[in-house]
Amino acid sequence: MTLRGQRLTKGHGTGNDFLLFTDPDAEIAVNAQEVAALCSRHHGVGADGVIRVARTAALAAGESVAARLATDHPEAEWFMDYRNADGSLAEMCGNGVRVFVRYLIAEGLVTLGDGEILAIGTRAGVKWVKRDGEEFAVAMGLWSAPGGEEALRLGADAAVEVDGIEGARPGLSIAMPNPHVVLAVASEEEVAAANLLRTPRVQPVPTDGTNVEIVHPMGETETPDGLVGVLRMRVHERGSGETQSCGTGACAAAIAARVWMGEGAPERWIVHVPGGTVRVRIWPDAQVELAGPAELVADVTLR
Amino acid sequence: MTLRGQRLTKGHGTGNDFLLFTDPDAEIAVNAQEVAALCSRHHGVGADGVIRVARTAALAAGESVAARLATDHPEAEWFMDYRNADGSLAEMCGNGVRVFVRYLIAEGLVTLGDGEILAIGTRAGVKWVKRDGEEFAVAMGLWSAPGGEEALRLGADAAVEVDGIEGARPGLSIAMPNPHVVLAVASEEEVAAANLLRTPRVQPVPTDGTNVEIVHPMGETETPDGLVGVLRMRVHERGSGETQSCGTGACAAAIAARVWMGEGAPERWIVHVPGGTVRVRIWPDAQVELAGPAELVADVTLR
Repeated sequence: MTLRGQRLTKGHGTGNDFLLFTDPDAEIAVNAQEVAALCSRHHGVGADGVIRVARTAALAAGESVAARLATDHPEAEWFMDYRNADGSLAEMCGNGVRVFVRYLIAEGLVTLGDGEILAIGTRAGVKWVKRDGEEFAVAMGLWSAPGGEEALRLGADAAVEVDGIEGARPGLSIAMPNPHVVLAVASEEEVAAANLLRTPRVQPVPTDGTNVEIVHPMGETETPDGLVGVLRMRVHERGSGETQSCGTGACAAAIAARVWMGEGAPERWIVHVPGGTVRVRIWPDAQVELAGPAELVADVTLR
Repeated sequence: MTLRGQRLTKGHGTGNDFLLFTDPDAEIAVNAQEVAALCSRHHGVGADGVIRVARTAALAAGESVAARLATDHPEAEWFMDYRNADGSLAEMCGNGVRVFVRYLIAEGLVTLGDGEILAIGTRAGVKWVKRDGEEFAVAMGLWSAPGGEEALRLGADAAVEVDGIEGARPGLSIAMPNPHVVLAVASEEEVAAANLLRTPRVQPVPTDGTNVEIVHPMGETETPDGLVGVLRMRVHERGSGETQSCGTGACAAAIAARVWMGEGAPERWIVHVPGGTVRVRIWPDAQVELAGPAELVADVTLR
């Protein structure tokens, strides 16, 4: 079986968009070239990636992670088989996993009440997704600071130059575990002024490249959950350029802002990205939770 | 009636992509906001524009052009009701009209044999589209040189600076009738080197802005139609930035190349654009014909 004639669904989480399809028994051959053609914005349907919705058990034969999950986490019935727009395999995507769960519910593949938690298989292992009203919260894993205690004390371990922003600015490296460097600017106007068509220059040069988050801390706001920090952020993703939203980037931005604020900084953050708004919660044990919306836009059938 | 629940079809002509839908009696209310949401690449389905396929007669009540066509050109049964990605009304689109005719045929709304001609209603008046095997040729109208005989003799009437290309280069202004300035570069590498993220600077500054075509003439090739000129082109469209393809831009490029070549230059040109390949024919009476492919990619239903 191939993707042709298959119903696909286009959905997005804060502007990070995906084409999803149901293939419970993993019978559809998905090749990189077909995924790339599908994701092509002008010649295909257009998306940041393609997600196959398959049973973890059905993928166990071909995917070592799925095989391990099928044994260790039998509760992770569904596996997010995610491919990037170029057709390459991807481990996980913080925005994609919310859209994945929204899709499972809409298609009647799972039921999930408010506050209930669902285990999802991914190439990065099992991920726990909690329904939070019409949004979803995902446990993203532990954060760390590659620069260690010294970087956390100084609030910086790098110098970043960004076109449109004057001078080299101090940046703080955060691993989620993928690499991020977060720099603070003085105003929302300065966030908007950054020209991210050119890749920001980071010193010392990161070995494997890095995502760069430009962040303006907008103060705190009182919510039913208590005092919450508010950030405006734009992100340059390594290999992709500026994107509408980056899940791990929003987490890194909140962590850096919390470090900079020091004593008394809130655990919860609202992060405004170009594609929408997400919420980050930083637990005392370094666990990071990312919450946000997930929308299904249209059903698509290839001609 | 609204677009919600309506079947749309995504198609493209050399990477210029559209969402089309059939509304023979013009019963669906199309508002700019809905079109913009639909065309949004990350939050919607994504396209360069939306085309409603309606009977010219059905649009006559609301569109003065359609009313005139219904009287003067009753053979133009179908009207290309085209909107840009921002929801604003557009007159015509050389790539869009090919996709429009491909759609009419695929949906069984017209039959069109090889070599046969179909009249299409557009806001720019009636357009004649000829089927040419699996491609379509469109009579685009008359070209002219705003710089007059002097510009045609010199082959230039403007100076153009483009990031990535050294110095200011002579450019030739061509009206199709929308404004173009065409400049020649020495190699395909130089075409590729142009950085079109920044708008090219044209002197004297065109009052209403201009499209800019960067062209490398690649010589001539023998075809069943005789000797044909070959061009490599990239285009910066006024208001849009670099695009995959620009129908009037390809015409302007072929006209400029013909002017530069002088005596004995071919009438027919193959133009390679980033999104594919089109063919231009310049008739002695200054009529310009644009031919190229048109593909229907997928059917889309909004959730």
